[in-house]
Amino acid sequence: MKIIVVGGVGTIGQAIVKELAPRHTIIVAGRHSGDVQVDIEKNSSIESMYKKVGKVDAVISAAGNVHFGLLKEMHAAEYQLGLSSKLMGQVNLVLLGIDYLNDGGSFTLTSGILNRDPICLGSSAAMVNGALDGFVRAAAIEMSRNLRINVVSPTVLQESMGAYESYFRGFKPVPAAEVALAYSKSVEGAQTGQVYCVG
Amino acid sequence: MKIIVVGGVGTIGQAIVKELAPRHTIIVAGRHSGDVQVDIEKNSSIESMYKKVGKVDAVISAAGNVHFGLLKEMHAAEYQLGLSSKLMGQVNLVLLGIDYLNDGGSFTLTSGILNRDPICLGSSAAMVNGALDGFVRAAAIEMSRNLRINVVSPTVLQESMGAYESYFRGFKPVPAAEVALAYSKSVEGAQTGQVYCVG
Repeated sequence: MKIIVVGGVGTIGQAIVKELAPRHTIIVAGRHSGDVQVDIEKNSSIESMYKKVGKVDAVISAAGNVHFGLLKEMHAAEYQLGLSSKLMGQVNLVLLGIDYLNDGGSFTLTSGILNRDPICLGSSAAMVNGALDGFVRAAAIEMSRNLRINVVSPTVLQESMGAYESYFRGFKPVPAAEVALAYSKSVEGAQTGQVYCVG
Repeated sequence: MKIIVVGGVGTIGQAIVKELAPRHTIIVAGRHSGDVQVDIEKNSSIESMYKKVGKVDAVISAAGNVHFGLLKEMHAAEYQLGLSSKLMGQVNLVLLGIDYLNDGGSFTLTSGILNRDPICLGSSAAMVNGALDGFVRAAAIEMSRNLRINVVSPTVLQESMGAYESYFRGFKPVPAAEVALAYSKSVEGAQTGQVYCVG
């Protein structure tokens, strides 16, 4: 298969590439690096990426940012980053990518554990993750041409615990390589409308 | 208790008022009617409402719109209505209302079934409902002064089936009066961080 991995230079993205590259042709899309550049907050940049890459069998996204902050210090503006980047950035990869997917192709997005198991400072992440899980469940039933869509919802990564462990006390981290298996299941399996919780 | 019901003139809102009015002082907030006017898409309007009403013991929201449309005809602009109105409109009622809630007071928002049990045309509703459920679970753990926050996630209403039944085939509708009980549980009980699924 020919697979785009948006965010393929990040921690999860690299693990996805390592998992899938032995069996597939991978195009890594990054904001400033990778095989092709894309800023998922700009529809024109997403369209340009798809035009450059052409038809594919799978689009994987492990990209998008949210603001972490105390609820009492959060305003609409702080939530907007998550809505524009991690949420609508990934949703626009789907909306604009449908025509570039070969029949039977798949989208796999990335949400996260914080809407299921919240932490302090995480209300924007919880909002965005819940939105992605809901969107994917609904979008799946409207896909034509046997297109599929799933989302991977990982807990905190072992690789990130050095920086984030004080925010995630009591969470059992998982290695990015284990999270990458869920993307393999989504792309190489046949399920759709699934939220793959890892950890 | 002194309770604001935003959207108190809608189908669910009226049922909430009917359930709570015998025991509490209710202020109905509507866009064009009610005891006080508010446009939840404008922070200045929300602030103005809170200034007029003053301190309260509970804020209930049964307000907010989303666009229903086929996934293949949805673009970022169509999703924006739900993000600005039903999602951030309700979230801003919380962010701007915290200082107007008396100690031990509560917020109760409204999401809906479509992120758990999707229908065609419902990808924006699913997105927004999931976002609200996630936000509430996370916001609850950061509330001070024993403030609480819950969300009610109802299925389709009996009262709405005349207009919507062709979109909700196979769904068992519930009367608005039954949905209103969940708001009573949220306001008059002591739970927080809950997603009350009705139907």
